[in-house]
Amino acid sequence: MTLLYHADAERGAEWAVLFAERAPEIPFEYRPDAVSPEAVRFLAVWHPAAGMLQRYRNLEVLFSLGAGVDQFDLDDIPKDLPLVRMVEPGIAEGMAEYVSLSVMLLHRHFLDYVGQQRAEVWKLKRFYPTSCLRVGFLGAGMLAQAAIAKLQAFGFTLSAWSRSEKKIEGVTSYHGEDGLNAFLPQCDILVCLLPLTPETRGMLDGALFSKLPKGAAIINCGRGQHLAQSDLLDALASGQLSRAILDVTDPEPLPPGHPFWHHEKIFLTPHTASMTQPHTAVDTVIDNIRRHRAGKTMVGLVDRHSLY
Amino acid sequence: MTLLYHADAERGAEWAVLFAERAPEIPFEYRPDAVSPEAVRFLAVWHPAAGMLQRYRNLEVLFSLGAGVDQFDLDDIPKDLPLVRMVEPGIAEGMAEYVSLSVMLLHRHFLDYVGQQRAEVWKLKRFYPTSCLRVGFLGAGMLAQAAIAKLQAFGFTLSAWSRSEKKIEGVTSYHGEDGLNAFLPQCDILVCLLPLTPETRGMLDGALFSKLPKGAAIINCGRGQHLAQSDLLDALASGQLSRAILDVTDPEPLPPGHPFWHHEKIFLTPHTASMTQPHTAVDTVIDNIRRHRAGKTMVGLVDRHSLY
Repeated sequence: MTLLYHADAERGAEWAVLFAERAPEIPFEYRPDAVSPEAVRFLAVWHPAAGMLQRYRNLEVLFSLGAGVDQFDLDDIPKDLPLVRMVEPGIAEGMAEYVSLSVMLLHRHFLDYVGQQRAEVWKLKRFYPTSCLRVGFLGAGMLAQAAIAKLQAFGFTLSAWSRSEKKIEGVTSYHGEDGLNAFLPQCDILVCLLPLTPETRGMLDGALFSKLPKGAAIINCGRGQHLAQSDLLDALASGQLSRAILDVTDPEPLPPGHPFWHHEKIFLTPHTASMTQPHTAVDTVIDNIRRHRAGKTMVGLVDRHSLY
Repeated sequence: MTLLYHADAERGAEWAVLFAERAPEIPFEYRPDAVSPEAVRFLAVWHPAAGMLQRYRNLEVLFSLGAGVDQFDLDDIPKDLPLVRMVEPGIAEGMAEYVSLSVMLLHRHFLDYVGQQRAEVWKLKRFYPTSCLRVGFLGAGMLAQAAIAKLQAFGFTLSAWSRSEKKIEGVTSYHGEDGLNAFLPQCDILVCLLPLTPETRGMLDGALFSKLPKGAAIINCGRGQHLAQSDLLDALASGQLSRAILDVTDPEPLPPGHPFWHHEKIFLTPHTASMTQPHTAVDTVIDNIRRHRAGKTMVGLVDRHSLY
């Protein structure tokens, strides 16, 4: 009946404390050697190692510790084993903070000032009211909506594009292929929060960049595979794009000597935009285990066709 | 009857357009040579040059284009000439953005990531929920309150200190000398938004830093003269402080070769935290000129004793 948290031990220990407090009826373990594989009914992982699932033959549910499941090789997961992605408020909060911070960095020219300080230059760059800056989201799901709520409080002009029609209060919404062509030319900053699917892979390419206003900036918080890397370098070289903030790359970590490392117009962060937070994630997993036991649908259950 | 805007010509031209639209009855000029000195009744300046006031003998009001008046030599200003500082929402908005951005930079380790990128290091630094980070404001006036309102939406734990007692919704408030000793030990990030007065000059010194939690960070958006520079270097060297974000220095610009330029724990911005925004500042000045003509008290009229 045990839930095995098979990931970082430091956080595993935090989960153990929280589980003991909040769901003493669910046996919890984060040290794989301390539990017999047969006892493991629930497994929580980031990246399941090859063969891991064969080891736990009595598994009832596989929990992803991340918001997405693109890190899983779905062919390796039995079709009848429920796979649940992490839907917990801490992830959306973290993403909303990261996106707000990145938009504000660009609005207030802080990356220019990092460069100026290195060169001993004291030069004020004028900034304009937030309402003059148009921030557009590729993707209008839970994460985008959390970021939008934060940015609205600062007064930025916001829009969002999604594949199918969605309405968000106070935001200009676009959808579908035609909508994309109308959306892109009015994005001074484009934020990618798309899930990675065959349709969205490589979507951030030269053709897309050419439809943005000249000098636009991009923020990629999706996946490294959304971005055509050499197209980004070309767009920065031509001035079509002014800056890129990338939280994700392909591969990760970025290899030594990769041109992104020392590009003055690219700011890299090490896949930190969002992080599952133990104090909220634990509640989600407990709730889902109880739902599972009661025969109810779990929150975040992955549809194997749409992949989100 | 003319208002002379005696500052940056680019913005002066923007003011001219806004004045013509919003107050056609008030003659406006931003080119000093295009108006006879006798016609100038209202003068708007950042830093009045020596002798400037003698040139405009019919002056009725002197407007500061900044939120403070410490850049003025008050002995050079006739005691009976009303001096008005800029109280306009654009200044508070800009400051609230700058402070929020700086706090979030620290919360999400972005300055570490700037350094890591330079060294080709991809290393995630864990971040914790915003409620775990205690942000304290030195100063609880209009600017601090605007920043507090923004940071509250992100969930940071907030407190503020002021000389006399002030209450701010959702914020732990301290005041006076005893209050300061209780306030400092619970500030993971200390934001200075004090006015510069004889009492606050040099207040950010080693004695104050030693009362903060070990590893605290400071953000100075007050004046460069609030900070004891060598005490900051000592506190960063000992680890008592972990980082400083400084928007103001003494002098400005910071001289070539100053140790702050290349200090890895100091991030400098060129006095950009807040900027008078034409589209809102113009309304404030128009309102004050109309108040003055109607014999009413102007908003932002400086008390020559308290200096704010």
